[in-house]
Amino acid sequence: MTTTLVRGGTVVTATGRGGADVLIDGEKIAAVLQPGSTLLGVDLASAVDTVIEAAGKYVIPGGIDAHTHMSMPFGGTTASDDFETGTRAAAWGGTTTIIDFAVQKYGERLEDSLQTWHEMAAGRCAVDYSFHQIVGDVNDASLTALRSLADEGITSYKMFMAYPGVFYSNDAQILRAMQVGADTGLMTMMHAENGPAIDVLVAQLLAAGKTDPYYHGIARAWQLEEEATHRAIMLSNLTGAPLYVVHVSAKQAVAQLAAARDAGQNVYGETCPQYLYLSLEDNLGAPGFEGAKWVCSTPLRSRHEHHQDEMWRALRTNDIQMVSTDHCPFCMKGQKDMGVGDFSKIPNGIGSIEHRMDLLYQGVVDGRITVERWVEITSTTPARMFGLYGRKGVIAPGADADIVVYDPHGHTSIGLGKTHHMNMDHSAWEGYEIDGHVDTVLSRGKVIVDGDEYLGSKGDGAFLRRDLCQYLI
Amino acid sequence: MTTTLVRGGTVVTATGRGGADVLIDGEKIAAVLQPGSTLLGVDLASAVDTVIEAAGKYVIPGGIDAHTHMSMPFGGTTASDDFETGTRAAAWGGTTTIIDFAVQKYGERLEDSLQTWHEMAAGRCAVDYSFHQIVGDVNDASLTALRSLADEGITSYKMFMAYPGVFYSNDAQILRAMQVGADTGLMTMMHAENGPAIDVLVAQLLAAGKTDPYYHGIARAWQLEEEATHRAIMLSNLTGAPLYVVHVSAKQAVAQLAAARDAGQNVYGETCPQYLYLSLEDNLGAPGFEGAKWVCSTPLRSRHEHHQDEMWRALRTNDIQMVSTDHCPFCMKGQKDMGVGDFSKIPNGIGSIEHRMDLLYQGVVDGRITVERWVEITSTTPARMFGLYGRKGVIAPGADADIVVYDPHGHTSIGLGKTHHMNMDHSAWEGYEIDGHVDTVLSRGKVIVDGDEYLGSKGDGAFLRRDLCQYLI
Amino acid sequence: MTTTLVRGGTVVTATGRGGADVLIDGEKIAAVLQPGSTLLGVDLASAVDTVIEAAGKYVIPGGIDAHTHMSMPFGGTTASDDFETGTRAAAWGGTTTIIDFAVQKYGERLEDSLQTWHEMAAGRCAVDYSFHQIVGDVNDASLTALRSLADEGITSYKMFMAYPGVFYSNDAQILRAMQVGADTGLMTMMHAENGPAIDVLVAQLLAAGKTDPYYHGIARAWQLEEEATHRAIMLSNLTGAPLYVVHVSAKQAVAQLAAARDAGQNVYGETCPQYLYLSLEDNLGAPGFEGAKWVCSTPLRSRHEHHQDEMWRALRTNDIQMVSTDHCPFCMKGQKDMGVGDFSKIPNGIGSIEHRMDLLYQGVVDGRITVERWVEITSTTPARMFGLYGRKGVIAPGADADIVVYDPHGHTSIGLGKTHHMNMDHSAWEGYEIDGHVDTVLSRGKVIVDGDEYLGSKGDGAFLRRDLCQYLI
Amino acid sequence: MTTTLVRGGTVVTATGRGGADVLIDGEKIAAVLQPGSTLLGVDLASAVDTVIEAAGKYVIPGGIDAHTHMSMPFGGTTASDDFETGTRAAAWGGTTTIIDFAVQKYGERLEDSLQTWHEMAAGRCAVDYSFHQIVGDVNDASLTALRSLADEGITSYKMFMAYPGVFYSNDAQILRAMQVGADTGLMTMMHAENGPAIDVLVAQLLAAGKTDPYYHGIARAWQLEEEATHRAIMLSNLTGAPLYVVHVSAKQAVAQLAAARDAGQNVYGETCPQYLYLSLEDNLGAPGFEGAKWVCSTPLRSRHEHHQDEMWRALRTNDIQMVSTDHCPFCMKGQKDMGVGDFSKIPNGIGSIEHRMDLLYQGVVDGRITVERWVEITSTTPARMFGLYGRKGVIAPGADADIVVYDPHGHTSIGLGKTHHMNMDHSAWEGYEIDGHVDTVLSRGKVIVDGDEYLGSKGDGAFLRRDLCQYLI
Repeated sequence: MTTTLVRGGTVVTATGRGGADVLIDGEKIAAVLQPGSTLLGVDLASAVDTVIEAAGKYVIPGGIDAHTHMSMPFGGTTASDDFETGTRAAAWGGTTTIIDFAVQKYGERLEDSLQTWHEMAAGRCAVDYSFHQIVGDVNDASLTALRSLADEGITSYKMFMAYPGVFYSNDAQILRAMQVGADTGLMTMMHAENGPAIDVLVAQLLAAGKTDPYYHGIARAWQLEEEATHRAIMLSNLTGAPLYVVHVSAKQAVAQLAAARDAGQNVYGETCPQYLYLSLEDNLGAPGFEGAKWVCSTPLRSRHEHHQDEMWRALRTNDIQMVSTDHCPFCMKGQKDMGVGDFSKIPNGIGSIEHRMDLLYQGVVDGRITVERWVEITSTTPARMFGLYGRKGVIAPGADADIVVYDPHGHTSIGLGKTHHMNMDHSAWEGYEIDGHVDTVLSRGKVIVDGDEYLGSKGDGAFLRRDLCQYLI
Repeated sequence: MTTTLVRGGTVVTATGRGGADVLIDGEKIAAVLQPGSTLLGVDLASAVDTVIEAAGKYVIPGGIDAHTHMSMPFGGTTASDDFETGTRAAAWGGTTTIIDFAVQKYGERLEDSLQTWHEMAAGRCAVDYSFHQIVGDVNDASLTALRSLADEGITSYKMFMAYPGVFYSNDAQILRAMQVGADTGLMTMMHAENGPAIDVLVAQLLAAGKTDPYYHGIARAWQLEEEATHRAIMLSNLTGAPLYVVHVSAKQAVAQLAAARDAGQNVYGETCPQYLYLSLEDNLGAPGFEGAKWVCSTPLRSRHEHHQDEMWRALRTNDIQMVSTDHCPFCMKGQKDMGVGDFSKIPNGIGSIEHRMDLLYQGVVDGRITVERWVEITSTTPARMFGLYGRKGVIAPGADADIVVYDPHGHTSIGLGKTHHMNMDHSAWEGYEIDGHVDTVLSRGKVIVDGDEYLGSKGDGAFLRRDLCQYLI
Repeated sequence: MTTTLVRGGTVVTATGRGGADVLIDGEKIAAVLQPGSTLLGVDLASAVDTVIEAAGKYVIPGGIDAHTHMSMPFGGTTASDDFETGTRAAAWGGTTTIIDFAVQKYGERLEDSLQTWHEMAAGRCAVDYSFHQIVGDVNDASLTALRSLADEGITSYKMFMAYPGVFYSNDAQILRAMQVGADTGLMTMMHAENGPAIDVLVAQLLAAGKTDPYYHGIARAWQLEEEATHRAIMLSNLTGAPLYVVHVSAKQAVAQLAAARDAGQNVYGETCPQYLYLSLEDNLGAPGFEGAKWVCSTPLRSRHEHHQDEMWRALRTNDIQMVSTDHCPFCMKGQKDMGVGDFSKIPNGIGSIEHRMDLLYQGVVDGRITVERWVEITSTTPARMFGLYGRKGVIAPGADADIVVYDPHGHTSIGLGKTHHMNMDHSAWEGYEIDGHVDTVLSRGKVIVDGDEYLGSKGDGAFLRRDLCQYLI
Repeated sequence: MTTTLVRGGTVVTATGRGGADVLIDGEKIAAVLQPGSTLLGVDLASAVDTVIEAAGKYVIPGGIDAHTHMSMPFGGTTASDDFETGTRAAAWGGTTTIIDFAVQKYGERLEDSLQTWHEMAAGRCAVDYSFHQIVGDVNDASLTALRSLADEGITSYKMFMAYPGVFYSNDAQILRAMQVGADTGLMTMMHAENGPAIDVLVAQLLAAGKTDPYYHGIARAWQLEEEATHRAIMLSNLTGAPLYVVHVSAKQAVAQLAAARDAGQNVYGETCPQYLYLSLEDNLGAPGFEGAKWVCSTPLRSRHEHHQDEMWRALRTNDIQMVSTDHCPFCMKGQKDMGVGDFSKIPNGIGSIEHRMDLLYQGVVDGRITVERWVEITSTTPARMFGLYGRKGVIAPGADADIVVYDPHGHTSIGLGKTHHMNMDHSAWEGYEIDGHVDTVLSRGKVIVDGDEYLGSKGDGAFLRRDLCQYLI
């Protein structure tokens, strides 16, 4: 087995940072050592196969993006990144684990959908991957399947309070599923928007000739996110199921989560880079059809109402526990443009998997969060939340050697033709400049990104069986 | 330098746990390694001087008790533990760092008080120690001294909203001091009780013949803790000074802290074991003068009002960030008994320094908190909160080798003649049974407690210069 | 026209009380005068046809019960009071106006249902009456009908978030109706319980053999009332429709209403006598099938959780604005007993129309509310809330002479064979003793109750066309 | 005795409005009658001495200004209106009752101060008056005097948390006084600002050369109003004393009051016209020394932070119960100008007594409140709050005939040389245009203002002995 020493860097954890060397033996971290790497007289640097110099740089656990949708079927098309292109872009951006979603459609067997997704991903991924299970048809059979889902290494499942006729679960279904969640310890993930109400507004806006992408944001009003978030919290309260609300974008939804935490409930929330940086006015409201690039659900929120600032605040004080991307890219040509003249036909999704680590690091530079909090919300908490901690999310002996060497003195210019490896014909983040750079990425001990060179191979990534939530339940 | 290997144990951090060996070289942790300790072919166990077997046990960073009062002058007497007896008891209980308080009295120079406390502690301590600075006389001179306090390695200072005529600062003084706190980054610690109001109630109760220890708890009503907590928070809000409220006991005070966190303020709270386990009715209300054992301020709260449960809840969800003891022991004979017939003359304080780690571990056994949270609230967060992280509060290379081997299958019976090394003629925790045991304690690499043997020496402990707060500001 | 003088009493309004005489000319109040009734030299007492002596008694505006269900079809049977028996019982109890509900069933035309109810009530009522419109089938046709409902003198409509398959409206329907509410000013009334979730729990309880009336209260958990209340509030917030939540029973639902008021929304809540006095444990949990008497929805709540105290508190401080009965009586024999062995088959409803004024007056005696607040919550606010003020709800010139002479020194023993005029084979209030008594009741100037004599006739009551809400919108 | 008939108008109460005639017999209202005023065949119009035509106009109870400071000694000068000029201006503006403050200074006997104020007011007032008692020196003697204050017809007393060295009471004093408040039922009124903290900021601002009136608003930060408000609420909670917070200006203080109400406490708040209309930026920040006109405490708040909107909201939903003026005028020349170069020397106070009714009526025109709410917050609630209801605050038989005929079609231009009868050399409301007009004012049956003619005499007004609070305790 190959041995590698990452030396001279500053190892960052969720609680602190310090100079330390990291010794890798095969796929695992063998030891974390005092700088200098002379251990009981042995000079480790000369003993290992490879030495990676990390002086002046951060050595962090590889990013974990717990919310991606490769090849996701949506609105009559399919997300433009598949498991190959999407995970490679992830690797370029310092993310070494993704958790994607197996999608049970209405009328389908839950087990079959998981099998389908296994087949879609196997042998194609650049980094390790796992799945959450979307339950698109809550019934006796799928609830039974849910009870043994953990045996498959899948410990979380997702329902939608939006998208009636597609993924939507009604409250009776949610209640029944959450009862299983409470019994089994599976994490319930929730897309919390009041879909039936949204659909009324969408139809009314279209009927009134308000067809531009901007109205996507108007139809999906914050009240309908706040409401659904509260409803999910109360059903969680009633059943005792732990709850994780995905892609929180409204400050009022954050307030609901915070209040529930203050009352002792095990409810958590994730936000995404787009809700920290982008807005209804600046992006969805861009001239012409340009706003379609940023059509995603929950939608971008108004900057005038300060949702973005409040989201950064919530990230800082742990009212929001982590950041995923909800990566679900669609090209403007042939995909997003299906919605010209009808915003409701624009496929929902933004591609960010490559930029999450950078965009959040910029929050460190901007004084929004500490470097420790950056590691916590992008890697350590995702690992704990979804039962990967120990193997992932930490630089510690025994853990997988998923390591990123991040240069705080480097620079990254985001945009097509610059740093874009996602299968998209545009970037949602064009023009963003980051005061840091992903220098080196190791996945289970193998260097897969080294500066501007990609050294990995299709199929490097393996499926991860996950434990139950390890976060503070 | 001596080398030691702690092997086979489960290393616990604030975020997770895993099997790992810990190599100690002199006073420092040299490496954390995969179990087995064969590193690049070298068998470390045979290479080191000493091997400590930790199989089946937790290996945790030594406890940090950030609130102690050795030899504290109070009410005409002096706390019965001095730096020698108190820190030795700490060591017995798995606590390897204390932060005590230098007390500036009214009319005294701040610098002189610090010097006095240095002299009291130097050469006497069993474990490492530092000081917070009590500012008992806020004036131009002491504010100037405060501005250079960090140069002395003291990065936190404390004021009292209680005890008029003794330690009390009025709001004008608090405001001025907090402005310095905001400028310098010093942490403001606050005893948050409305002293002037309390003193009225005390006088009225005594005049009405209500002289038993129980009335100590009545006089110090929760409204007066909640009020002062809110007042401190608003002065912190106005000035921008980070704030740490000591010994929070009322659930309503917790609610104030939580609301301020939700609004983004850097305010934190500590509670103590007595507020998690003991109560107004059961303890302060014990027959006769017995209740005097538990006279401390803030007081024990009513169990009927569920303060204790709410405090555990707050500890779990991080609305309260850490646990200290407020260790300030007084003997019943010759000290507490000064207050027979007048509860206001009972010296305020409980001795718990020896039992904090055990009492909180019992919370793990009882399902109140996780083992990771136990480490976080007893060691990691105290280190971060008060600028010791890196050296203390974590098992990582470069850190001081302050390590406790804790046996989750062991047992500890608390009480005089059983496990009591504090200089007290009674135990506030008599009869408590703990489902765990402190087996081995290392302080900077030296084994000072080994089973039922004390191997340390007076003066092992050294003064710790501290950095500014490393917690999420 | 007949003239009457009510003299010597204490006239009570929502804001105060004072000695005054009331002169009635025909159906209307002609004047309110200083005691003594000598006006500019004219001795009114000798000039009028009738003098009613009210010395030592309260003279109050007749009660308005804004929530009754005469002859209500429910669960395969029909409420046991029809408009004749129910309104006569109302009169006995000092209530001189009711607002009942016209029920549009699924598949029915809204207009037809109103017509049906007009026919059921016309010529039968003892006191004046009006209707709210239940919209049981929200669709284009009923929404159009809603837009002209005010032309019929109906200015409020009700939807149900409970009872799927019967009255239930989903969120899309509620949103569309509320948009009409916002446009027209109609008051939206809401039965706020999450029906789909409740139905799951009901089925599970029955399947588990938990068939007693008590489980009616378990199935309809407070979380599901709180949730639906919040949801209705947010849909109101989104649309701008004023909202009135009926029969609030959970303290957490009250908190949601209070929070929305504090944020400036026009949302109001009603409670009922049963939620002030009765409980899950004492009543629903009565031995055997006895609890069926108190099966109503929302259900009686736990006394251990202090819902009743909190409801009185909310009444006092106007977080709950008024009290109706939700009068919907069923006999034990032949009706309630349909649910022996299956609580879900017990018709939902309690009969209280005769006792509301007395039960609330007892709250005055018990120090819960003032006598002014009693008048406000039983008469003045109901009149304002539902557009009757001026004619009803106040003793003022020009108002209908609906007047109750209430004796605070009288006594009322509630129970069958004592003071029971409702068409029921039991009393939900058996054994309640009231420290007050309805002495005389006038409806539009006619004495219909005089001591223990009923002087009214079937058909005395007329339909009331109502204005839009006059409460503080 | 003279008889008067006010006929054809719309009588407005706190709960509704309706056409009615008002018959006055001497000083009292004898009857409220149906329009037309033919009572049992008697044509009242021809029987009375005087008829006032009110067709198309509102007939409302005379305004009650519960917070005025005639001849108030402050900052080395004296408020420029004395009881003669101030109450005459009040009458012009439709205010027929004032409650001023007797000021006990430090070292003075409480009884003596009341005597002094009686002497200052007696024989000089244009309208009826009463006093609250300022307790400027809480000690055994003044507390004893407080216990029998109600015997003097004074049922409310005020303390200051601001102005150390002048009116300031510390928390011990407040607690002791509130205990008396709880025992006696006296209303505790509180000036809620943290004076000691404010004085620090004042000194620092002045030392930094920030001497303009604008900095008065900066020094008195909202945090220090919110804090003191909360503190007063908690001391009220502890003692059970009812509490009335004067001149609330910060939205965060409103939130504290609302939260306490929601928790059932008897705490109330008053705001003033200046906090509804004026702002830190527009007024205090006026160029040069102009801002001095609006120096008052609590200060005008920032419009950017929306305090004004929130105050209107709170008025509408009864989180703030009433509006007084805190009338305390000072001339620019010779008074306000004492603070040129030092804002802290500007006498605190604004003159508004003449314009309160108009300024609040404009809120009706602007859709902020209803006409009923206007009457409630300017007359009915003040009467109830301070024990005058029945005599004042309502148009009902037996009440004093304090009546204003207000023309909603009239117009009032506020300003010097236009409608200004206060003894000031400027108007704080210069240029305000009101869409309404005070046409006729009666005080105890006597017309004192008739259009642009003043018909009253010095000494018309009499001292009012007050009952305890009649508001919803």
